[in-house]
Amino acid sequence: MEIKRVAVVGYGNIGRAVIAALPKQPDMELAAVLTRRVEQVREQAPDLPIFSLDRIDLVARANVNVAILCGGSCTDLFDGRQGPQLAERWNTVDSFDTHARIRDYAELMQTAAEKAGTVAVFSVGWDPGTFSLARVYADAFLPGCKPYAFYGLTEQGGLSMGHSDAIRQIPGVADARQYTHAKPEAMELVRSGKNPDFEPGDLHWRECIVVLEDGADEDEVRRQIVDMPNYFAPYQTTVEFVTQEELERDYSDMPHDGVVIAASETSPGNAGVIEYANTWNSNPEGTAGIMLAFARAAVRLRNQGQCGAFTPLDVPPALLSPRSREELLTKFM
Amino acid sequence: MEIKRVAVVGYGNIGRAVIAALPKQPDMELAAVLTRRVEQVREQAPDLPIFSLDRIDLVARANVNVAILCGGSCTDLFDGRQGPQLAERWNTVDSFDTHARIRDYAELMQTAAEKAGTVAVFSVGWDPGTFSLARVYADAFLPGCKPYAFYGLTEQGGLSMGHSDAIRQIPGVADARQYTHAKPEAMELVRSGKNPDFEPGDLHWRECIVVLEDGADEDEVRRQIVDMPNYFAPYQTTVEFVTQEELERDYSDMPHDGVVIAASETSPGNAGVIEYANTWNSNPEGTAGIMLAFARAAVRLRNQGQCGAFTPLDVPPALLSPRSREELLTKFM
Repeated sequence: MEIKRVAVVGYGNIGRAVIAALPKQPDMELAAVLTRRVEQVREQAPDLPIFSLDRIDLVARANVNVAILCGGSCTDLFDGRQGPQLAERWNTVDSFDTHARIRDYAELMQTAAEKAGTVAVFSVGWDPGTFSLARVYADAFLPGCKPYAFYGLTEQGGLSMGHSDAIRQIPGVADARQYTHAKPEAMELVRSGKNPDFEPGDLHWRECIVVLEDGADEDEVRRQIVDMPNYFAPYQTTVEFVTQEELERDYSDMPHDGVVIAASETSPGNAGVIEYANTWNSNPEGTAGIMLAFARAAVRLRNQGQCGAFTPLDVPPALLSPRSREELLTKFM
Repeated sequence: MEIKRVAVVGYGNIGRAVIAALPKQPDMELAAVLTRRVEQVREQAPDLPIFSLDRIDLVARANVNVAILCGGSCTDLFDGRQGPQLAERWNTVDSFDTHARIRDYAELMQTAAEKAGTVAVFSVGWDPGTFSLARVYADAFLPGCKPYAFYGLTEQGGLSMGHSDAIRQIPGVADARQYTHAKPEAMELVRSGKNPDFEPGDLHWRECIVVLEDGADEDEVRRQIVDMPNYFAPYQTTVEFVTQEELERDYSDMPHDGVVIAASETSPGNAGVIEYANTWNSNPEGTAGIMLAFARAAVRLRNQGQCGAFTPLDVPPALLSPRSREELLTKFM
């Protein structure tokens, strides 16, 4: 099996998870870690092959086959031009997840990858990513269904980084975690095949765990959270105040989970239901495993002579697997 | 959208379900129904474009883009050579499900399709088919997991045609249905990430509903069922005797359902679980919807200039969808 040499761009939660997951891949090895915080990362991880993102030219000798872009969707990949700049150099995989800009990003990556003759697989993760696959498969197999996604089915719920960050912007808040919870009654309604029209607040409720700064006003912070447009106002929202010690003791994990449910009738009276669920105790580690499978596919697509921008929907599933066609046919079909 | 003209080969449960599902496809129309029982089918469905399977040359004027092969895996597709013979003429989709012969069938179809310049997508349905996809995706995304399939999660269980047929071969049996049931405790063990080594009887139990011929010996029939090697001997099996009227009143549906569960750890202590479930009140109708989506993909692969034998693992998911790339990007990612 051909060894793929992987560059990891960014040393945040996802970048570190990708590096940790690499040894489980029989056909990959770490070629380089690219970061803007070279000194800081070298201190944290002295054994890694660290390079500066501002001197990509120096990475040439690392002989990279595919780069995993672990930066932020808007700040780094799109507005920071990291996506197209790296796609002009290497095959890339990223987890771009800003829904409203996905068409523009697709065009940007297509232009860069086509020009360079590379393969850029974008929006890889679990949503967008594996859940996108589940939606498209269900819609194709079961005409008339409407695929719904629910998040936070476990008791703990799913940690939303975006909503946690939004709470941390409020004056008087020292730290916060936001857990999203699915409403079981909405899931049952979908499974029944009714294909209901939901408002956002019908599907989920939101649990906020907040640490106040000294002297901050509980009631005022609570009001600012529950009234925040888009993020919390449309939802049933609970706010609980804890100490920083409690937050770190009880809420340090990064769990997330969800399910895509699609239901319809194959003929009058005959129901069909398709469900796809992912549960991750560590959201970044789950995302890392998915990105590495698509990194394998990116290299293989390139070896087939293809180039351009691909979503997970454009990739034949067999290309994701480290196993031979023979083994897939006899043991996985 | 280009209209695909579909030939349906075989007028059994699946063939009839495919014909019934065609009007839901925005880009397909029925070109021909091929059967060996021409007179009988013409009587049942006088409005259909019926052709004899023994005079395929006469179907030329029907201008077929893809044929859906709905015959039996061994009798018709393989030993009866229907698979390769039709792949030499048209793009094909079939639901070949004889696991032990899948490699040989793949070779047969590859030779036929390559020679003719057609696309033959084989082993399409839900298992093999959508469940094969679920196994390969889970194995690629979550290294170290072992994907397990369970059938019959609903109270009613899943109707197994093969096991029903096996009971009907026993002397003294007039009719029978066999419902497979998953063992919830085995599912929980898999979800816990233990990747256990199961015997077949650990995963499922079998419920037999039997109509006796006049004068047949209940105890003898029961003994022959529960002792039948492979089919029932390895399983906890219940046998209930009913009248033909009760069988037709209470057990006339063809439900089936199942789930693929894969669990592992993304790092020590951090569990990851992936689940994919299909529930069909009508098993043939569920299978028909899946086959039609792959029929669309077969025509598109051929239009791209590809030929040969493909499994569902070899098909980019976007090719299954009737929707535009634009719509998939903005509404399904």
